[in-house]
Amino acid sequence: MSSLEEKTLHSEEIFSGKVISLHVQDVELPNGKQSKREIIKHPGAVAILAVTDENKIVMVEQYRKALERTIVEIPAGKLEKGEQPEVCARRELEEETGYVCENLELLTSFYTSPGFADEIVHVYLAKGLSKKENSAALDEDEFVNLEELTLTEAMKYVEDQKIYDAKTAFAVQYLQLQEAIGSK
Amino acid sequence: MSSLEEKTLHSEEIFSGKVISLHVQDVELPNGKQSKREIIKHPGAVAILAVTDENKIVMVEQYRKALERTIVEIPAGKLEKGEQPEVCARRELEEETGYVCENLELLTSFYTSPGFADEIVHVYLAKGLSKKENSAALDEDEFVNLEELTLTEAMKYVEDQKIYDAKTAFAVQYLQLQEAIGSK
Repeated sequence: MSSLEEKTLHSEEIFSGKVISLHVQDVELPNGKQSKREIIKHPGAVAILAVTDENKIVMVEQYRKALERTIVEIPAGKLEKGEQPEVCARRELEEETGYVCENLELLTSFYTSPGFADEIVHVYLAKGLSKKENSAALDEDEFVNLEELTLTEAMKYVEDQKIYDAKTAFAVQYLQLQEAIGSK
Repeated sequence: MSSLEEKTLHSEEIFSGKVISLHVQDVELPNGKQSKREIIKHPGAVAILAVTDENKIVMVEQYRKALERTIVEIPAGKLEKGEQPEVCARRELEEETGYVCENLELLTSFYTSPGFADEIVHVYLAKGLSKKENSAALDEDEFVNLEELTLTEAMKYVEDQKIYDAKTAFAVQYLQLQEAIGSK
């Protein structure tokens, strides 16, 4: 046990929705004093850095209501209850892009907002892509535009803030790093 | 206006706390149907990749109640009302680590969880570090342990999931990329 641990004295569920739930906790701090923590619980998610045989990155443009704008992201989606991340990654890739992949490799996992949320994102690299004729459909409240970008185009999108979220920024930088290592 | 836009029909504030607020919105989808969106509003944050003259990365170990564990992160903190990100970055760096910096450069900004939150993180690179004798103090409910890591140590921390959050994963990969480019 870490000396930095905060003990839960009381936890109240304020809201439980279809994506997130909100809890307010009274905690005991390491110095014995008390404070409140506002906690969002989330089922976790996957994101897929899918690279075609032509070395294009498969991206989706999507309206994000929280931001009141569209951004361009690598395909991603929430874990369903009991779903294995790798299964979810293959499902979301197909649903959002129509691609299936031969090779799927976990690159990393990270918490997105540890200050207030338990959301974790598992980031996969997908290769050996092929378009499926009759792909699984998007969720009924999901609308996306497909884009296939070179790394140079993706880096320009980051600069122009069309790509503007953590997992996609990480994914683009990952490919920059692979290129830098590979070209040594 | 994008054809992907979702129009707000009704928005209700469910909760307003000291860090976040929660809103549930009825939206009109691009196909005219309706859905609900659960939205977290957050003031935004800064994170500081601070590198010492000895090429060590300044990190803080912190208990994250949302995760029920400690993780090691680059220093970070919420924007105060009306505060400029650069001012916030200098303040948080000093409060959490005791360091002040000569040079502060914005590396990038990204949304952490665009699916449900508007939190943006501005990531800065801080160099020319020096310890201040009488540093500004931590918030009264904030407890951290300071660590100074080489890049190799930080990469091991990522592998061991001691470093486990988006902004810090991005920052470590940024330094890997700089090293790869520099050593070509």
